[in-house]
Amino acid sequence: MNPILPVIAVHGGAGTITRAALNAEQEARYHEALDYVLKGGQAILEKGGSALDAVTEAVFRLEECPLFNAGKGAVFTHAGTHELDASIMDGRSLAAGAVACVKSLRNPILAARRVMEDGRHVLLVGEGAEAFARNAGLKTVPPDYYFTEARHAQWQRALSEGRFGMLEGLAAEPIDADTKMGTVGAVALDADGNLAAATSTGGVTDKRVGRVGDSPLIGAGCYANNRTVAVSCTGSGEMFIRMLAAYDVSALMEYRGLTLAEACEEVVMHKLPSIDGRGGLIAVDAQGNVCLPFNTEGMYRGHAQAGGPRQTAIYR
Amino acid sequence: MNPILPVIAVHGGAGTITRAALNAEQEARYHEALDYVLKGGQAILEKGGSALDAVTEAVFRLEECPLFNAGKGAVFTHAGTHELDASIMDGRSLAAGAVACVKSLRNPILAARRVMEDGRHVLLVGEGAEAFARNAGLKTVPPDYYFTEARHAQWQRALSEGRFGMLEGLAAEPIDADTKMGTVGAVALDADGNLAAATSTGGVTDKRVGRVGDSPLIGAGCYANNRTVAVSCTGSGEMFIRMLAAYDVSALMEYRGLTLAEACEEVVMHKLPSIDGRGGLIAVDAQGNVCLPFNTEGMYRGHAQAGGPRQTAIYR
Repeated sequence: MNPILPVIAVHGGAGTITRAALNAEQEARYHEALDYVLKGGQAILEKGGSALDAVTEAVFRLEECPLFNAGKGAVFTHAGTHELDASIMDGRSLAAGAVACVKSLRNPILAARRVMEDGRHVLLVGEGAEAFARNAGLKTVPPDYYFTEARHAQWQRALSEGRFGMLEGLAAEPIDADTKMGTVGAVALDADGNLAAATSTGGVTDKRVGRVGDSPLIGAGCYANNRTVAVSCTGSGEMFIRMLAAYDVSALMEYRGLTLAEACEEVVMHKLPSIDGRGGLIAVDAQGNVCLPFNTEGMYRGHAQAGGPRQTAIYR
Repeated sequence: MNPILPVIAVHGGAGTITRAALNAEQEARYHEALDYVLKGGQAILEKGGSALDAVTEAVFRLEECPLFNAGKGAVFTHAGTHELDASIMDGRSLAAGAVACVKSLRNPILAARRVMEDGRHVLLVGEGAEAFARNAGLKTVPPDYYFTEARHAQWQRALSEGRFGMLEGLAAEPIDADTKMGTVGAVALDADGNLAAATSTGGVTDKRVGRVGDSPLIGAGCYANNRTVAVSCTGSGEMFIRMLAAYDVSALMEYRGLTLAEACEEVVMHKLPSIDGRGGLIAVDAQGNVCLPFNTEGMYRGHAQAGGPRQTAIYR
């Protein structure tokens, strides 16, 4: 048997990202950021660290980066506030943790991990989640921490268009940072053969207060199972919830015997589009195969094996 | 082709319900309540109404009944408050709606249905969900509306035992209303061949503030798909989340070709117990077959075809 070659993949959101929407300098910034994120996870895997630690570190870095819609750089709700969601799952035990609708945590992914480690519950929301995270010693931030000029302008445009969290009909627009469905995530396989997945988001611009998308929901936006696959999703969250997109990749592999690539194709190119679900996902299976499919014009993404080159991409 | 015979099934929670725990009078009250709940859904189906309307009415009646842990009669959180969750799914379109962690809505299931009908989002939590429901004209109630002596005593016992929302280790206790995992739900097939599922709960006694279980999570505690099955779950919610219990029944039928009974057996008797998941579910498939499996000592349940007798049960 060949030794397992650890691997990590990350994403920073999918959407209508055309070449016209980003200039060369902006493109370079995204590639640089994705490389830095991958590097953090890769370093952990190269030292024999766990998939769980690798995805935590990668998503932590994505949350810290204002370019991506998670943590710093999160989008605005209809009320002009920020509400963040995150989840993590351990493919070894199927243990999982998640937080949703938190407004004061610097790194929702660390709160999700604490929820998982605590083990009593899987999902905590709102003030209860924040109180739990504070008691666990996690960093809190004032509301204006999340503010970025770019997201504020995006919200103002959404407000003026009466979008109210709707994404429908936007696919036809020529460009658009505004229709990038911002979620970040990471999946990894470690040297022990363990899979893990993590997802974090600020949600969708101009969403209703209290809206929770697929990102913190196990099986929808995040899933990991050593028997099959680790998956993190990004896209029109409501459709990913209704399709159980992340778990569906696993179920198609386990129950129908599809390969990773076939299962991803079925979910992203057939099942999600059947209900107008747009976006993508990143997946790594128990053999270390990686698949990064999306049905939008672009998805910020990257992957790297332990000791291998880091590859990042934006467009098709 | 035979005409479709509409059918409804309901549950009022599963757990360590032994004959010793209920006297004859209490038993009779549960049977009577379940019969009344079934009757409401059955009447809608008999008039040619939709599965969606039937499950909404049945869960509404379960929420109104103080015997069950949903709406009036909801359990207490660790803080002595009440936080309610509910979800609904339409098997025809895979449309879904849910609310979680709401504290002032008389009928969370009606709010879930409004979220689905609104169509913008699938899941709203906390104050955002409450504001949405108020704007939709739904009834609000003061916190003491949910109070029942029985649930208060249950919470006091949990506090004194330092249980804190944990269910582990309680299966061995001889009796126990306290370990009944209270969730309510309904599934139905209507004359047009449409399936629907609805689930509502007060959660688990002494849960952390902000804890959300499987009940409002599509694919975990509630799922409906005309191609396969409608499912509503009750039990140790965290395990049902990790197993995607409701959707898994559907996936096993669709991808592995199992019958309804085989899929239910696999999920309730094998997959859930593999992670110490305890509870049960109710399911009706597209042909009108009904399955009401549970791996606990009892589950409040019932089912009825249009024009047929109403059957209710508590123990194995």
